[in-house]
Parts: sequence; structure tokens; C-alpha cells
Amino acid sequence: MNDLYAHLDAQFDRHLDRVRAFVRIPSISGEGKGMAEMAELVRDSIRGLGGTADVVPTPGWPVVTGAIDAGKPKTLLLYGMYDVQPVEGEEWLAPPFNGDVVNLPDFGPSMVARGVYNTKGPLAGLFNVLESIQTVGGRLPVNLKFVIEGEEELSSPNLPGFIASHRDRLGADATYFPFYCQDRHGKPVMWLGVKGIQYFEVACRGGTWGGPRTRGVHGSNAVWIGSPAWRLARVLATMMDDREGITIEGFTDDVLSPSAEDEELLQRLARTFDSATQLWMWDAERFKYDLQGADLLRRYLYTPTLNIDGIWGGYTGPGMKTLLPHEVRAKMDVRMVPNMEPERVRERIRAHLRRVGRDDLEVHFYEGYPPAKTSVREPVVQALIKTFRDLGHEPEIWPHLAGSAPFYLFRRVLDQPFAMGGLGHGGRPHSPNEYATIAGMRLFEQSVARFLFAFAEG
Amino acid sequence: MNDLYAHLDAQFDRHLDRVRAFVRIPSISGEGKGMAEMAELVRDSIRGLGGTADVVPTPGWPVVTGAIDAGKPKTLLLYGMYDVQPVEGEEWLAPPFNGDVVNLPDFGPSMVARGVYNTKGPLAGLFNVLESIQTVGGRLPVNLKFVIEGEEELSSPNLPGFIASHRDRLGADATYFPFYCQDRHGKPVMWLGVKGIQYFEVACRGGTWGGPRTRGVHGSNAVWIGSPAWRLARVLATMMDDREGITIEGFTDDVLSPSAEDEELLQRLARTFDSATQLWMWDAERFKYDLQGADLLRRYLYTPTLNIDGIWGGYTGPGMKTLLPHEVRAKMDVRMVPNMEPERVRERIRAHLRRVGRDDLEVHFYEGYPPAKTSVREPVVQALIKTFRDLGHEPEIWPHLAGSAPFYLFRRVLDQPFAMGGLGHGGRPHSPNEYATIAGMRLFEQSVARFLFAFAEG
Repeated sequence: MNDLYAHLDAQFDRHLDRVRAFVRIPSISGEGKGMAEMAELVRDSIRGLGGTADVVPTPGWPVVTGAIDAGKPKTLLLYGMYDVQPVEGEEWLAPPFNGDVVNLPDFGPSMVARGVYNTKGPLAGLFNVLESIQTVGGRLPVNLKFVIEGEEELSSPNLPGFIASHRDRLGADATYFPFYCQDRHGKPVMWLGVKGIQYFEVACRGGTWGGPRTRGVHGSNAVWIGSPAWRLARVLATMMDDREGITIEGFTDDVLSPSAEDEELLQRLARTFDSATQLWMWDAERFKYDLQGADLLRRYLYTPTLNIDGIWGGYTGPGMKTLLPHEVRAKMDVRMVPNMEPERVRERIRAHLRRVGRDDLEVHFYEGYPPAKTSVREPVVQALIKTFRDLGHEPEIWPHLAGSAPFYLFRRVLDQPFAMGGLGHGGRPHSPNEYATIAGMRLFEQSVARFLFAFAEG
Repeated sequence: MNDLYAHLDAQFDRHLDRVRAFVRIPSISGEGKGMAEMAELVRDSIRGLGGTADVVPTPGWPVVTGAIDAGKPKTLLLYGMYDVQPVEGEEWLAPPFNGDVVNLPDFGPSMVARGVYNTKGPLAGLFNVLESIQTVGGRLPVNLKFVIEGEEELSSPNLPGFIASHRDRLGADATYFPFYCQDRHGKPVMWLGVKGIQYFEVACRGGTWGGPRTRGVHGSNAVWIGSPAWRLARVLATMMDDREGITIEGFTDDVLSPSAEDEELLQRLARTFDSATQLWMWDAERFKYDLQGADLLRRYLYTPTLNIDGIWGGYTGPGMKTLLPHEVRAKMDVRMVPNMEPERVRERIRAHLRRVGRDDLEVHFYEGYPPAKTSVREPVVQALIKTFRDLGHEPEIWPHLAGSAPFYLFRRVLDQPFAMGGLGHGGRPHSPNEYATIAGMRLFEQSVARFLFAFAEG
């Protein structure tokens, strides 16, 4: 390992260049820029390691898939994504697609770029590690397979189809998703699962119920013509109470209490959980609940969420314009906790609109997926825990993450346990000034190298 | 009169050019373009008639004021505006600031332009008429004073100050506001007053109550960090019930029932009121209320309105982005019916936010003004009614209009009765494809000419 670490260290400037090359391609899946170029760069990175690799078309953005046969007994499936979130309307310290290193007050030298944390930095870092292992030792310790999608930020609408049709070629002992998982104090945080997500868009416009049908009209008509804006505000208000508890009938019926294993993890987690850092990360003065420790964490991890991601309609320019808008829209998402299924969530939202007499609202559901979890006892998880301990860090283990990724495909469809993480620190995903520290990128490479050997030996 | 009509007719092409010159200047008061140029054009139009005229600065856009002394016993104060509404985000059949004549399916040849109806067409037409009267007869039948403001579409924030400081010079027997008032079937509609308006903007953002304070954060945090979007939706829902009845305490306390004169007008109005045309104009299938005739009209004219003009916040771009927005805003307005006052409306909105525990919301009130009314028995109103009848049209008389204009300044501060209207037809104020028919513009000029003589003789 020491030769390998020395090599990673010696090559680090070149390795940073690879990260920079990745973030410079503005592969925003929601907009379409740079997607083909980015897919080809990922494919060529796998081929550069002597693997087979293809850019496989889907009805949306392609999946890059491939394999490196090292002739070893164990096989790891590497999952990742090459797409990033939009930057529209955001103000950045540095251009979001340049890879500038900025000396951030709290973190020191850091790359500031869209995707450097979520997740092109870790993806490029993984290729750096594999290249160094081959250079120093000739052979990788495990066989690898790759599934690198281009629609994670769109909630992976075509990954299920891809996994189903390539199932036979994706067999492996476990799935691994590389990620920077140290918090700002250096503590590695491990998540043993993810919540599911159902994104949707609601449009309220004039129609048979009333309201202007095709254009906004003079605001004075609001006295006798119905308002889609009020209609949407009122129907939203029927879905949530003043404490932000969801009031859609049956919405939480499927939610299970934490399992015994999860409850044990929660109790242990509560000892190291740093609520001040969480509030700082999310720029808030307080949580929604007057809860602490395990009680707050239980709520955080086992409560589904109904979020308004955006809302818009009518006149939003400068100054005054009196207008009765004909259409108002909201983008929303549900985060599903264990045992919830997207189909039932969709049914309950539709049933709620019928119940309150508002099924004239148009609801467009994006592809949704359920949550997924792996046991802490799985060898792939134990290999990652061992890696952190070997490198001098005691990980903080979370039963799962509040965020979402389509791990159910690996867990449920391919029947593989999974692990995610690695040393390294970054932040502000989906926000301006997304960053990853330079020091963390070095640690990430060491941790991934060690993990691959630990998994091979485990 | 016949010589005068013949002259108006002979000069009509030139007269249309003046309308076109007016609409070609994009004087959007909310944005600032072309405002100085437009004010000067109005000033020069008055001077061109031998009057005195000045562009008088205010803290906002200037007021054009002036006078033409015809040495006659009666004086009419002409009120108007040289500003128009924005066109941002709208799709038009013709460029909105060009004055193209388009053959509209329902109306025949019509000028399609922002402001051609509301209200540069009538303003330019007025100057055309005055010029023709002078050319044909030498002298105007009444002395004129002018108050042409540039902030009507901003709810006239600086007109009160202007009227107060120029009060001594604005004495007149009545105020007149020229306007195309025929509906699509040719019926002239007269309004004896206006509702008041109070425009305001509400911002809900993260703060001591919770929520992200300065930037949107990853949407998965909605499970434990408060949401300004839900907070705004919920507080809006406390202001309005499902029938769009305002639920702000005391909001309608000051509202009076129609006076005996108004009730008589209402009953007469109900006989000619054409609800199908109203629905067609405002692009709706039905009214908010299951009411007809005088009952619907009473509700329309004597009920205050709380309207959402626009709402926006969070991610509103293409595709998906999960975000917990830190700020959501709404533009809103209240239309006040007789006996309501802006100050009390503001107080009640503030009190409501305190009552529901949401006075952390930032509310910015624009300048508001109360409603205003004139009796049908006033000579200026009778002169206009006589004009329509002389030209073969029985007017439909409304106690007031649901829209707003700062006529209280003329009625209450200057103590003048007022009238508004004229033949001519246009539509879609504040909307794309605002238009006025060419045939109507001809009729408008005849009616204004006749009205000036009728008022002088009355």
C-alpha cells in the first residue's frame, strides 16, 4: 500500500487535472449541454484502463457501461453518474464549469465547480486510483463492472430499463458508489441506504371550474372570475399542516418503525451526531421539530417529505402589474422512507386531489423510485468501515441518507448489497459554490485504493 | 358639427399616424424605457394647440400639465396617462410597439399595440379632435386643463403630491378621462366611478422561525428544515376560503350596500348587461358565483378583491431540481369598493399576519388609493350620455368600474365631478394583443368633439 500511496501522491497534480477535465464539461442533464462529450470521456477513461466500455443509448441520456476483468475471484459493480444540476440564476465565486481552486475561508484550497462534489470529483478520483493501482501493481485486486448513468439528477428515468435489459451482464458481489463522505470536521459519514423519490409537477389553470383559460387577464376580474393562483395555494394548503405535517390521507400508512438493527445504529449515531454542523450546512437557525439526538434523527430518517421545489405563475417582473394569471405551477417531490413505494404515493396524491375536488389540476409525475437499504453486516460495508478505521477515522454510520439515489436497482433487481462513500470533503450540492477540498481529494484516493483491497480480502 | 365631422374624416389617416407615433414609444413605467420621450411628445402636443404645457418632475416619472384658455365660461380638466404596462414574456401577433394594423377575425382592421386601448389611442385621438376643432372653428368650446401622468400603471404614487402642490392651478368645472368605451357589439358602457387599489408584495424567507436563510439547499432537507414555500402557501390559504371569500378579519367591515341611486342603476344595468360578452372578454367559462343579473353585478361592484398577481420562488427551470428554496414571493393587490380606505386595508393585512403568527413575512405596500364615484345627475355625466344618444347609441351605465384609477384626487381633493369614456372599441388591456378597432377610432373622435360642445352648452 505504501508504494501505491506514494504513487498517488506523486501523480496528484495530474490527478487534479482529470477532475478539472470532468467538471469543465457542463453536463447538465436537465438542459442537455455537453452530455455526449461527457459520456465519451467516461467511456474512454474505462478503456484507458484496459477495460471494455460502451456508451449505451436509452430513450434519454445514455448509460456508460463497461468491465475490467482482473481475473480475480471477487467482482465489484461501480455505480456513478456523469450528469450534474443546473446553475441557472445562481451566483458563483468562480465560473461553475472551470475547476478553479479557491481558498475558501472555512476549508482552505478547494475546487469550486458544479459537480465537483456531486459527483464528478469522486468519479474522476476513482479513475485516478485505478490507474495508479495498475501502474504500481499491474493488476486490480477485484474485477470491476461499471454503470455510469447520465440522468441521476433527473431521477434516473431510464436506468431501470437499462438495468433490466443488461441484468445478465451486471452480476457482481456488491455495488459501490464512490463519494466524499467526510463532514467539515473530518468525520467520515456512512449511509447504509437512501430514501426514494417521486418528483412531480402540478399545473393549475382556468377551465370548466372557472378562471381564465389561455391568457392572464386584467386583475380587476379577480372579483368574479376564479383564480388558478388561489386555487393552487388553497389545494397546497390541504396537503400540509402548519407544523409541516403531511395531511394527505394514508400518506404515511406504509411507513415502518426502524428495525432493531437500525434502532441500534440510531442510538449509536446520536452520540456523535453534530446537529450544529447540520444546521450550518443547510443555512438554518433551527430544525422544524423541537427534538434532539435519536428522536430528531428518527424523524429525519423515517418521515416522508413533501417538498415544494419551485412555484411560479403570473407577473413576476419589476414594479406593479395587476393580472389574474391563467396558470400557476409548482414543482414538488416526495422523499420516501423504507417500505414506501412510488406507485402508492402517486395513487394517494391523485386520490387526495379527487377528495378535495381538485382533480382538474394537471399532475405530471416524473419517474420515481423506492428507497433501498443494506445491512451493516454485509462484507462490502464492513470493508469500507475497516478502510476508514485503518486510515485513522472512526466512521459515523447512518441507517440511511435523507437524499435519494436509485440503489433499489442494485439491491432489489440485481440483488447486490451496496456501499457508498470514501474519505474527502465537499458541500453545497445543487447550490451555488459547490466545492470539494483539495486535501480531501488526496484522502479520497487513498481510501478508495484501500477499500478495493479490503473488499478483495474480506 | 357636420363641418367638423367632415374634417375629422378627411384627416383620419394623419390622425392614425398620431396614434401610431404615440404607441411606438415603449413608455413602460415599470421599466423606464421611453418615458422622457413620451412626456415630451405629450407636452408638445398641447403646445401645438397653442396651450401652455410643462413636463413637471416628481420623485418618479413626471406629470405633463398644461392649459388652453379659450376664453369660455366653462373649464374641463383632462386627465390621462402616457405610461403603459410591460410586455415581458408575452407573445404578440404583431410587435407590441409598432402600431401595425391587423385584420382581427372578430373585429376587422384593428391596431394591435401595447397601450393602443389603455390609453394612448384615446389620448392621441383627443389631440386629433382638438386640432380639428381649432382648424374648423377657430376656438375650443371650453377652456382646457391637462394632467397627463406617467405612473398610472404603477398605481400613481406621485400623482397625489402633484395634485396637492398644483391644486390652485387645477380648478375646473369637471374632470374628463377619454377612453374607448364601446363593447364588442357597439354598446357604449359608462362607468360613474372606479374601485380603489392597494398593491403589495409579500416575501417569505428563512429566519429565526427556521428555513434556509440565504440560499436554497438540497431538497432532502425539507424533512427537518422549515420551508418558506409551504409557509407562504399556508399563510395565503388563511386569507381566502375555497369559494374565494376573503377571510381576513374585518376586511369587509367598511363596505356599504349600494346607495339608492346605485341600486336603481344596477337594476337598469341588469337589463342590458351581457354576461356572455364579459366571460368572452375575460376568457372564462363561468363566474365564481352562481348568480345572475343584478345579484352578480352587485357582487362584482361591491365586493373587495384580494388577488394574486404573481407568485414565484425556487427552481422553475426545465426538468427536475430538488431544492428547498430560501425565499418565495407573491405580488398581490386589493381592489377597494366604496367606503374602503387603503390605510385600513394595510392595517388589516398586517393584523392578520400577526394574528396567524406570521408577521415575519415581509410586506411591502405600494402607494394605494381609495375608490371614487360621481353622481349620474352631474352635468358632465349628462353631457356624455347626451353625446352617445345624439350619435344613436343608448349607453349602458354602471355605478362604477371594477378597475382602478386615482379619480379620488379629482373628486375628493379638487372637488370636481368626473366623467370618462367615448365611443370606440378596444380590448385586452395588460394582456398580449391589446387592440383598438380602426372604425372605433373614427367614432371616438366624433364623440369627443360632440361631448366638448355638449358640456359647454349643458
